[in-house]
Amino acid sequence: MVAERVLVTGFEPYGGRGLNPAGEIARTLHGRRVAGADIVGRTLPVSFSRLRHAIETLMAETAPLVALGIGLWPGEPVIRIERLAINLADFEIADNEGAMLADAALHASGPAALAATVPLRRIESELLQAGIPARLSATAGTFLCNACLHALLRTAGTGPRAPLCGFIHVPYLPAQVAALLQANRQEARLELHQRADLASLDLETAVRAVEIAAAVSVEAARGA
Amino acid sequence: MVAERVLVTGFEPYGGRGLNPAGEIARTLHGRRVAGADIVGRTLPVSFSRLRHAIETLMAETAPLVALGIGLWPGEPVIRIERLAINLADFEIADNEGAMLADAALHASGPAALAATVPLRRIESELLQAGIPARLSATAGTFLCNACLHALLRTAGTGPRAPLCGFIHVPYLPAQVAALLQANRQEARLELHQRADLASLDLETAVRAVEIAAAVSVEAARGA
Amino acid sequence: MVAERVLVTGFEPYGGRGLNPAGEIARTLHGRRVAGADIVGRTLPVSFSRLRHAIETLMAETAPLVALGIGLWPGEPVIRIERLAINLADFEIADNEGAMLADAALHASGPAALAATVPLRRIESELLQAGIPARLSATAGTFLCNACLHALLRTAGTGPRAPLCGFIHVPYLPAQVAALLQANRQEARLELHQRADLASLDLETAVRAVEIAAAVSVEAARGA
Amino acid sequence: MVAERVLVTGFEPYGGRGLNPAGEIARTLHGRRVAGADIVGRTLPVSFSRLRHAIETLMAETAPLVALGIGLWPGEPVIRIERLAINLADFEIADNEGAMLADAALHASGPAALAATVPLRRIESELLQAGIPARLSATAGTFLCNACLHALLRTAGTGPRAPLCGFIHVPYLPAQVAALLQANRQEARLELHQRADLASLDLETAVRAVEIAAAVSVEAARGA
Repeated sequence: MVAERVLVTGFEPYGGRGLNPAGEIARTLHGRRVAGADIVGRTLPVSFSRLRHAIETLMAETAPLVALGIGLWPGEPVIRIERLAINLADFEIADNEGAMLADAALHASGPAALAATVPLRRIESELLQAGIPARLSATAGTFLCNACLHALLRTAGTGPRAPLCGFIHVPYLPAQVAALLQANRQEARLELHQRADLASLDLETAVRAVEIAAAVSVEAARGA
Repeated sequence: MVAERVLVTGFEPYGGRGLNPAGEIARTLHGRRVAGADIVGRTLPVSFSRLRHAIETLMAETAPLVALGIGLWPGEPVIRIERLAINLADFEIADNEGAMLADAALHASGPAALAATVPLRRIESELLQAGIPARLSATAGTFLCNACLHALLRTAGTGPRAPLCGFIHVPYLPAQVAALLQANRQEARLELHQRADLASLDLETAVRAVEIAAAVSVEAARGA
Repeated sequence: MVAERVLVTGFEPYGGRGLNPAGEIARTLHGRRVAGADIVGRTLPVSFSRLRHAIETLMAETAPLVALGIGLWPGEPVIRIERLAINLADFEIADNEGAMLADAALHASGPAALAATVPLRRIESELLQAGIPARLSATAGTFLCNACLHALLRTAGTGPRAPLCGFIHVPYLPAQVAALLQANRQEARLELHQRADLASLDLETAVRAVEIAAAVSVEAARGA
Repeated sequence: MVAERVLVTGFEPYGGRGLNPAGEIARTLHGRRVAGADIVGRTLPVSFSRLRHAIETLMAETAPLVALGIGLWPGEPVIRIERLAINLADFEIADNEGAMLADAALHASGPAALAATVPLRRIESELLQAGIPARLSATAGTFLCNACLHALLRTAGTGPRAPLCGFIHVPYLPAQVAALLQANRQEARLELHQRADLASLDLETAVRAVEIAAAVSVEAARGA
């Protein structure tokens, strides 16, 4: 009997930061089991030109029951479960290869958006029940996180055996905000009341959140 | 009979901005009359080394019944009436002469704080009554706005004929946020959700707010 | 020769508020001309059950070149131009008839989202150029504003002569925040630092923003 | 030889919440040793009428080298080290006995403010160095947290052997925000974008922050 797998992707650091909690979460979860399935944790490049191919390869290699993308949303205070990916790339900052897409379609002839297929409301309920702050979100932005969910859903397709796909935005880690506060002071460029990105969540809680989301999704995938 | 005067000070631009609503307010109000008193509007330098002397000179020249300092608080969404000035200068960004004070006392042997002497609660009530969003605040920060209120109160002294002194923080003007959004996009350095300073208030409303605060304070000064 | 028309809709008050800036904007613009077209301003009910029919009727009656929905987003500090409407109704507060939809599709067999057809980036540029703070947004929420844009786009259809449709979220009016601050104090239930909805924009600027958006869209519609 | 003591106070729950992280921190730290001193953790009533006497009693009983008050600031995303207490009580919500003070002095003939005596900047540096997000603050508000710091400083006095006193505001615990999100949904009264209080920090990090602050302060007290 072949083991069932959950793919958890997290991005490498970007935007001048030395760390990305999303990548840490994927690394931490790699090799763990949830609801009887094996987690395969993988780091994704913050590169628009390589992202889609990387996701297609990972999906082909792991043939997962569930695929969860994880990404950082600077300033977000809670676990944020994305409802959908839109067919758009529009960057506010460059990716790690210097690409700055503007108002570009992800899929030239594709629909305006693709809806996440993991059980959103059940994930939210289970997280809140576990004392983990979480909310559903109607936008995954227009940067690589949105492109990741879009690529996961597009690659997964829509058949009865299609893997369930979702995306979770996580806050900074506390240590990142500490570093940001130090850098802000050294740069002496913005006053603190100009910054909205001081919220954080500890790695352990974020990891537990993704674990719960994965377990709930595996059960939904089996039930389907 | 000598005319009664209200001194309204506003700062010149700082922090790389081309405009300071506080200076605009002082300029706009100069020459107007409120509650039978003449407004003298003056612009102050964003210079720690020159601030106190500039205020002492203005107070001596105008011998005002009421003195109101006005300053910008980036990100503040409403009219903010300061309760007190603390005996501290600690800068997050440099002033216009490059000075970066850290944990410095404004008055070596002075008390920890000086309380504003304008009728705070009455100003708040009148503003809200006029449909202008306003709140009392327990901190004027640790930059030049706080130093301005401190210098006003210190110069005014505490005698029965001492001018009533206060400080009002105002939001950005809408056009400043428009410029900030354009600059943010060109710099491609911060994502918008990292910024907390997108609120604004139109100049006309801000001017009316200071006019109301001045009128209420003049009446209080006469009643005293 | 038949006059070209722009339909501008704004909602009636909701959520316990006595006023809705969106409705005020529609009322103010009614009868004005932009770029040679006549604005028809209409108020929409905050009623999920009646919304779609109301929009279909207005679209049939006015046969507009451009249709712009306007709505309030409490706490939003700038003019917010929506990129798309998602196929979802999920309410955090009840509509004016007490309806509380949860995870409901707007169009049972429809796509996950419909993209706005007005020239988004040109509207943003023109607004910033005019000194009006504005940004594009990837979510119109999941309440009636999103449903309004969805119904506009669905009714408009996709033919070459389909009216261009868009949605603009506006901040509170300053007087609304003043009322909110008074109510907050009377209720004594939330501390001010718990509230994120203190930003506002004056009616005149909001009206001008919608006028500019309408003019830019009319030109785009003609050019198509 | 008598043991040196550090008094750490935290408040009981208030404002309709079932838990107060400040009280949890005091309880958790009770009995631990930092820098060779014994921590005495105590819970304070959220009662203006009883607060000052409770603090005087605790100070007399423990004769501490250092006294640190801890309090919750809903919405605060980081550890916040207060610079001073102002001579004012002005409540936005009632205390646990229903008291609603308005513009009341804490000390009728006292100065406008009392400055914290713990080594503020060193505490901030050590916390950031330890990867804990922290900032200095120029306002402890006008509720019981400010009153607590005021009472600590007033009771401590100013002699060479006076205990060093400070106050630290902490964010919500993650589980509190989870409960808040559940309650917000059930109440269906505020939309989430109206709320600014979704940030949190895990108990372990908050406890470590207070421990570090205590250790740094004990060393400063001995060095004095």
